[in-house]
Amino acid sequence: MQSYTPPLREMRFVIEEVLQAPAAWAAMPAHADLDIDTAAAVLEEAGRFASGLLAPLNAVGDRQGCRLADDGRVHTPEGFADAYRAFVQGGWPALACAPEHGGQGLPMLLDAAVGEMWAAANHGWTMYPGLLHGAYDCLRHHADPALQALYLPKVASGEWLATMHLTEPQAGSDLGLLRSRAEPAGMGLGGLPGLPAYRLHGVKQFISGAAHDLADNTVHLVLARLPDAPAGSRGLSLFLAPQRLPDGSHNPVRCTGLEHKMGLHGSATCAVALEGALGWLVGQPHRGLQAMFVMMNAARLHVGLQGLGHLEQAQRHAWAYARERVQGRGRPIAEHPAMRRLLWTLRADAEAGRVLAYETAMLLDTAHHGADADQRAEAEGQASLLTPVVKAGLTALGHHGADAALQVWGGTGYTRDAGIEQTVRDSRVAMLYEGTNEIQALDLLQRKVLGDQGAAFGRRLAAIQARAEAAPAGLAGEAAAVRHAVQAARAALEALAPQAEDTDRVGAAADDFLAGSTRLLLADAALRIAQAAAPGAAEDPWRAERLAAARWGLLRGAPEAVFAFGRVSSPVALPA
Amino acid sequence: MQSYTPPLREMRFVIEEVLQAPAAWAAMPAHADLDIDTAAAVLEEAGRFASGLLAPLNAVGDRQGCRLADDGRVHTPEGFADAYRAFVQGGWPALACAPEHGGQGLPMLLDAAVGEMWAAANHGWTMYPGLLHGAYDCLRHHADPALQALYLPKVASGEWLATMHLTEPQAGSDLGLLRSRAEPAGMGLGGLPGLPAYRLHGVKQFISGAAHDLADNTVHLVLARLPDAPAGSRGLSLFLAPQRLPDGSHNPVRCTGLEHKMGLHGSATCAVALEGALGWLVGQPHRGLQAMFVMMNAARLHVGLQGLGHLEQAQRHAWAYARERVQGRGRPIAEHPAMRRLLWTLRADAEAGRVLAYETAMLLDTAHHGADADQRAEAEGQASLLTPVVKAGLTALGHHGADAALQVWGGTGYTRDAGIEQTVRDSRVAMLYEGTNEIQALDLLQRKVLGDQGAAFGRRLAAIQARAEAAPAGLAGEAAAVRHAVQAARAALEALAPQAEDTDRVGAAADDFLAGSTRLLLADAALRIAQAAAPGAAEDPWRAERLAAARWGLLRGAPEAVFAFGRVSSPVALPA
Repeated sequence: MQSYTPPLREMRFVIEEVLQAPAAWAAMPAHADLDIDTAAAVLEEAGRFASGLLAPLNAVGDRQGCRLADDGRVHTPEGFADAYRAFVQGGWPALACAPEHGGQGLPMLLDAAVGEMWAAANHGWTMYPGLLHGAYDCLRHHADPALQALYLPKVASGEWLATMHLTEPQAGSDLGLLRSRAEPAGMGLGGLPGLPAYRLHGVKQFISGAAHDLADNTVHLVLARLPDAPAGSRGLSLFLAPQRLPDGSHNPVRCTGLEHKMGLHGSATCAVALEGALGWLVGQPHRGLQAMFVMMNAARLHVGLQGLGHLEQAQRHAWAYARERVQGRGRPIAEHPAMRRLLWTLRADAEAGRVLAYETAMLLDTAHHGADADQRAEAEGQASLLTPVVKAGLTALGHHGADAALQVWGGTGYTRDAGIEQTVRDSRVAMLYEGTNEIQALDLLQRKVLGDQGAAFGRRLAAIQARAEAAPAGLAGEAAAVRHAVQAARAALEALAPQAEDTDRVGAAADDFLAGSTRLLLADAALRIAQAAAPGAAEDPWRAERLAAARWGLLRGAPEAVFAFGRVSSPVALPA
Repeated sequence: MQSYTPPLREMRFVIEEVLQAPAAWAAMPAHADLDIDTAAAVLEEAGRFASGLLAPLNAVGDRQGCRLADDGRVHTPEGFADAYRAFVQGGWPALACAPEHGGQGLPMLLDAAVGEMWAAANHGWTMYPGLLHGAYDCLRHHADPALQALYLPKVASGEWLATMHLTEPQAGSDLGLLRSRAEPAGMGLGGLPGLPAYRLHGVKQFISGAAHDLADNTVHLVLARLPDAPAGSRGLSLFLAPQRLPDGSHNPVRCTGLEHKMGLHGSATCAVALEGALGWLVGQPHRGLQAMFVMMNAARLHVGLQGLGHLEQAQRHAWAYARERVQGRGRPIAEHPAMRRLLWTLRADAEAGRVLAYETAMLLDTAHHGADADQRAEAEGQASLLTPVVKAGLTALGHHGADAALQVWGGTGYTRDAGIEQTVRDSRVAMLYEGTNEIQALDLLQRKVLGDQGAAFGRRLAAIQARAEAAPAGLAGEAAAVRHAVQAARAALEALAPQAEDTDRVGAAADDFLAGSTRLLLADAALRIAQAAAPGAAEDPWRAERLAAARWGLLRGAPEAVFAFGRVSSPVALPA
């Protein structure tokens, strides 16, 4: 069974030295009181929770799975409910919620770091509270005050859980095909006076945590169509349908089955029948997707953090095993060059990936709390640009990294004893949900990059180039590799720009563009790590290790960015 | 549940038109009577067996798994034993065995094609008869005539199964660490007069099919040390220890546990205790590895064919699903460029991989039955060069291809209903057994390429280049891409040659060299496919599809070879 050791020093290093978050906090009224020691103490406490309560339940969750009883109740694995109670008591759901709703008002950056921990320690369990913060944000911005008063504090505290009902059997990537309907049902139903209620009908699929035994109520956020809705995704409205209605009665949001999945057995993936369930509109009619986008964007960042957590777990355990297992002339396998190559790559990717994910969270903090409007708008644009890269890039690294790490164990890795095979299976789903990675690639290229004719992406490239030009002489080779990759990215953009309206050309280029962007952004992150780690590396083996991993990852990875962008610039023609 | 449709036309095309095997058969006395229609009829019959009997048991095997009963017997999944009986009755084990031992004497090339079918239809089941042919070859070349008389016909017919006992808990990749011992026990024991018997003691791990309910005897081939054995891998001897001794008594080769694996649940992976089991020496004392190498090399080719089978299954089902599933503006997802890109890549890799694997099998036929000694020696050397590429390259493609294909199903792919997630799990093990892919990479570079100063590899490069130079004008771009990759391979060899004795340098380069070699050999295979498919492609959509896939795969893949060889030539320094 795999333990979890929170990478506390690595996290603090990224927050304090690479991203220099404390200086940014000082400039935000909402976070001006926060200092790095307080932040580190929060992470230490979270690490204790993750390693002490969540990690021991990870293999349990995989082996027991969830069970749908005849009465329609879902039983989660042993210990999951107790851990969730402790989670609520510890105040973890409210970490980044506003103090006026009972939250602690801490930055999204810290929420991201603890999100990495939860996912690394126990991805399956993490799915239950995973949507709380997104639901909180969604209700806070879009719900009627009467709904807010009833649900916001319960969601902020985690006393009640939250779910998101999008997918239907015929509508996966294409939400425009959703068929669930909402019919006006009158005022004052279900114990909520003053608001028009709706009856929801339909069938939903792949709904994580739609039923469970962790909390005594669940706030279902459901996409459905009003009677007068136009076809397509612009005709979707968002409804809040609590499992237990304000008058205490049971709402017919019924789990009709659990999926048998490759992994993530601890998480209940439900088929759901909406059998006239009562719900209330959240946001404007037909504007449900806009209201849900807040939630989906938060979810995408968190899915990226799951990928990061998997990669971190895989690299840490692979290193530990490789140092202890002796094969071949009495040497631990960590000394064999083929293994070292793999181990250093995993470490480099995990550490650069952390910078990228945390930076995105930090941009969200600036977007919310930045001192001036321009700064806030730019941060929001950059966060929105980076989100698909974090989601798709880090989930691919998490899964492929865990899959590659399995080789370190040899045949033992293929058995459940080593634990790594569970990481491989669990991590696979993150490349699929909240929009498959192919959808993320299209979102990045079509919407985020070409949508403003490359302006936001161009500013990111300029910042990367400026950092490379300012790099110290000791990192000249690394800086040159980054500049070369920036050049390749610009060339790819130039090649694409005249064909931006050709959806086949853009669609065929999207995955390569995403691969190039991921490698470029990781190379930039590695350069920043190297710069931050270099001073004192001669005396401190820990800093020397960060520096070595960053250099290795950058010098291997930047040429991969050049290669991928080259494919965008000079594509091979897809067969007809 | 996934069905299996044997790619009969694709297989015949490779055998007849790409590899032009019938002309080669005509020149071999052993196969001079074989014609392509007979060969095709064998494949058709095998395809019927694979799709009719094996494929329906694939999901059953995954879900039921194997069970170790209290009495030490292993129960395989429902239907496995019946299918095996039908397999023996059909004469399938004896396909490539010599007529004098009851075999059909067909070429290894056909054995490879049916091997692809078995693995594609049901990898777990295939593990039971998987070592029969290797054991047959091993006994035929190394066993005492008395042992041959007793065991060769039963192994050739498949009436008895065969296993290979190498791994021990402390000895995975490093067989030199094996501890199992063999003690002289006297003459005439166990009902076999005239041969000295030995008592085997030790603990073995990861022994596929050491116990089962498919046949009433199992021929265990066991590596162990004689009392006077030197340390290391040169001190290992090979023993034949039948589960049921010639005198009918039970031999204490005991299955003490089954592994809980990520996949391949239908295959019993046993922990084994050798508790004084009786065995007889096969081959010379202390030369057990040499005797077993025959078996391991055959096994490696077959593992590569498993990778090919997985890739073929993944691509075929992904295409079928993508054509039927509609998402986004009413189009089947097979029309979306990101999906087309993936689908064509999977198809291209499967088709070029088939050429590479079948060519290796055909080289074995020439090595055994070629008209003159030089030709036989060269074929053996080339087969030995290609074997690690087939094993490691195709198993990586099989697993990564299946893993990539899963994206086509979206969330459904993560559930067991679609079947692809089983392919992902089952295919993973092939990167580990019969020597991990890292061991294959070292075998390729250190032994097969640098071992003769690049001579055999150089001859392969020259042949590839000659084919590219002779390519028709219509494939000029493809031919240029291949030549470019050959150049990169030569440059990598030149860069390595002066450092051939530096095991760290060679070890760190091995995986990149393997990746480059795989992509180069697949590009060469694709060029041959394209040349064979081009005539008549204008009239025949099936030929046009082969041509299109080959061009796409080659033009995408050859630059990957250049990239990988470039990393060999100009390596990034591994951190200390």
